[in-house]
Amino acid sequence: TGSTDLMNSGRTYAEFSIYKGKAALSMAPILPKFTKMDSGISRVDKRGVVLLKFMPAIGTRKYDWEKKQFFALSAIEVGSLISLGPTESCEFFHDPSMKSSLEGQVKKTLTVSPMGNDGGYFFGLNVLNSVEKKTERFSVPVSKAEFAVIRAACGFVLPHIMGWDQVIRPQMESSNNNQVK
Amino acid sequence: TGSTDLMNSGRTYAEFSIYKGKAALSMAPILPKFTKMDSGISRVDKRGVVLLKFMPAIGTRKYDWEKKQFFALSAIEVGSLISLGPTESCEFFHDPSMKSSLEGQVKKTLTVSPMGNDGGYFFGLNVLNSVEKKTERFSVPVSKAEFAVIRAACGFVLPHIMGWDQVIRPQMESSNNNQVK
Amino acid sequence: TGSTDLMNSGRTYAEFSIYKGKAALSMAPILPKFTKMDSGISRVDKRGVVLLKFMPAIGTRKYDWEKKQFFALSAIEVGSLISLGPTESCEFFHDPSMKSSLEGQVKKTLTVSPMGNDGGYFFGLNVLNSVEKKTERFSVPVSKAEFAVIRAACGFVLPHIMGWDQVIRPQMESSNNNQVK
Amino acid sequence: TGSTDLMNSGRTYAEFSIYKGKAALSMAPILPKFTKMDSGISRVDKRGVVLLKFMPAIGTRKYDWEKKQFFALSAIEVGSLISLGPTESCEFFHDPSMKSSLEGQVKKTLTVSPMGNDGGYFFGLNVLNSVEKKTERFSVPVSKAEFAVIRAACGFVLPHIMGWDQVIRPQMESSNNNQVK
Repeated sequence: TGSTDLMNSGRTYAEFSIYKGKAALSMAPILPKFTKMDSGISRVDKRGVVLLKFMPAIGTRKYDWEKKQFFALSAIEVGSLISLGPTESCEFFHDPSMKSSLEGQVKKTLTVSPMGNDGGYFFGLNVLNSVEKKTERFSVPVSKAEFAVIRAACGFVLPHIMGWDQVIRPQMESSNNNQVK
Repeated sequence: TGSTDLMNSGRTYAEFSIYKGKAALSMAPILPKFTKMDSGISRVDKRGVVLLKFMPAIGTRKYDWEKKQFFALSAIEVGSLISLGPTESCEFFHDPSMKSSLEGQVKKTLTVSPMGNDGGYFFGLNVLNSVEKKTERFSVPVSKAEFAVIRAACGFVLPHIMGWDQVIRPQMESSNNNQVK
Repeated sequence: TGSTDLMNSGRTYAEFSIYKGKAALSMAPILPKFTKMDSGISRVDKRGVVLLKFMPAIGTRKYDWEKKQFFALSAIEVGSLISLGPTESCEFFHDPSMKSSLEGQVKKTLTVSPMGNDGGYFFGLNVLNSVEKKTERFSVPVSKAEFAVIRAACGFVLPHIMGWDQVIRPQMESSNNNQVK
Repeated sequence: TGSTDLMNSGRTYAEFSIYKGKAALSMAPILPKFTKMDSGISRVDKRGVVLLKFMPAIGTRKYDWEKKQFFALSAIEVGSLISLGPTESCEFFHDPSMKSSLEGQVKKTLTVSPMGNDGGYFFGLNVLNSVEKKTERFSVPVSKAEFAVIRAACGFVLPHIMGWDQVIRPQMESSNNNQVK
C-alpha cells in the first residue's frame, strides 16, 4: 500500500555532533535487527547501539572524515553513561574483531571522565593497532549542557535500542483490533 | 487491510538479560489486556506487569531453562523499584495461587537490596513450596550501569503497563479526524 | 478507511487507583480539545488535565461512587506535583463554577503534604459548599512507591495534556511525505 | 490515500504560556527540516529549536503582540536549560542576522537566573538594536512549578528537535515490514 511505501521510502540520519579544537564527536542510535521465527514471533537478532564517531581536526572546524573511528555503546554502556555521577568516570574496552581470526589486533578504549567542577566530561578514545604498531588518540571536551543533551537523547533511545518499543507496539495495535471484533 | 495485517502479523520479544555466575535474570514488559464494554469504551481487564525471570546456572554461561521462576512486578512495585534510593531496599511477597484452592502452597519473595557503595543492587528471589517442602533461591548481582538500564526501561514502560498510552492514543487520532470533517 | 474506523472505534479508560481505608483516589489524563481555524491550523481550545477522583469508603474495600468528588490538575499543577521535594507541600484552590453565576458557592482545596520520612504524601481534598453549608473531606495516604508511579505517569502525560505531542506529530508525517514527492 | 490526507490536513500549535505582570513568555517546539538526498536517505537540513516568545504587558493581562521578540533555543541551549541546578544561571547570545550583511546590528541576550530559594527562575531577554540605538528588555518570573513544566516539556521534545525520533521511526516500520515478507 501507499502508506507502507511511505514508511519504507528511506532512512533518516540525524547525528548529534560536537565540534571541538582537536576532534569532533558525533553520535546516533542504531536500532536492533529482528528475526521472525517460525512461531510468528520476532526476536532481537542483533542488538541496537548508540554509535560514537570520532574525527581528528585538520584545520579550523575541518575534520578528517577518512580517519574517523567508531565506538558502539551497548545498552548497558549507555546505562553507565547516563547514570554517571558528577565526579565519576567510566571506561569501556572493545575489540572490533572479537571472536574472529583477527581478535586482539585492535583494542579500543573509551574513557569518559569529569573535566573539573563544571559538570562537563572528557570523551577520550584510544585505538591501539598492535599489527601496525600505532595508536590513535581522540579527546573531546563535552560541556555540561552538551552532556545534558547526550543524557536526555540516550535516555530516550535506550528502550528503542533494547527493542522494548517493539514489544509494546504491535501488541497495542493487536489489542485495539481485538476490541473491534 | 494490509496495514492491519502488518500490525497484527506477530508479537515481538525483547528481554533485557543479565547473565551472572550463579543465575541469570531477564525482564520484559507484559501489556494490560483490555475489554470493550457495551458502551464502546475499553477498560483494563488484566493489568500489565514487568515480568522477571530467574534461571539457575548449570555451567559457564549455561542456565537451566526448565528450573526458571517468574515474578511479575505490578505498576506500584515497578514504581518502588525505580524510586529506590542508593541505600534503600524493597521486598515484595507474591502467592501465584492467590484466591484459588492452592493459596498458600507457594510463597515467592523478591528482595532488592544495595550491594555496597557502588550503586548496584542484589536481586534475590526465594520460592518456598510448603507442599514439596523445598526452597529455591536465586541471587543476581546487578551493577549500577545495569540498574540504570532497568530504571530507564521500566520508567519507559510504566505508563504502558498502566494502559495510559492507550488512554491518550485513540483520543489523539479521534481529534485529528474531527479536524478534517 | 478501515484503519480510520479502527482508530475511532472507541475510547479507552485506564485509571490509576489507590484504595485506602477511608477513601480511594483515582487519576486519569484528559487530553486537550483542538479547534481547527480557517487557516487550517489547529489550536488548543480546551486545555488538558490530569483528573483526580476521590471516593469515600463505606466498608472494607467498598467505596461510595455517588459521593465522588473531582479535582482537575492543570499542566502547571501537575508540574508542581512532580517537582515536589521530599519535605515540600503544595496546595491548590479551585472553584468549579468560576466565571458563572454560581461562582463562590463551592470551594475545593487539594493539599499534598509529606507523610513523614518515608517519602509518601497525604492527598487531602476539602469540598466546602457554602449554600448547603457542608464540607466533605477526603484523605488518602500515598506511599513512596505509589507516588513514584504518579510522578512517572504524570511526567509521561504532561506533554500530551499540553498538546505538544500534537505539535510534533502531524509535522513529522508531513515532512516524511514531502521527502517522497 | 485518505490516511495520508488525514496526516497532512494541518499543523497544530500548542504554546505553553506564562502571563505575568510586566511581560508574557510563550514557548513551542519547532521541528527540524529534512532534505532527501539522491541516496534516498534524509538528513537534517535545518535544525529544530524551542522557540521562546516574549511580549510586553500593556494592561491587566493584556500584552502587545506587535512588540513581541523571539529567541530560538538550540538543542544544546535546551540541554543547558533543563540541567540547570537550583543556584545556577545560564546566558545565551544570539545575532538574528548572523552571517548576513546585517550582522552585528541586533544583539539578543537571554538570561535565566534563580529567583531566590523557592526553585523559580527569572527569564530575561535584552534586545539591543545598535542602529535604532534602543534596547528592549523583558523579564518574566517563572515559578518552580512552571519551570518543572518547562523542564519536562523541553526534555520530551529534545530528541524530536534533534531529529532522533525520525532516526528510530522509519527503521522500526521497515523492520516490521521485513518480518512479514
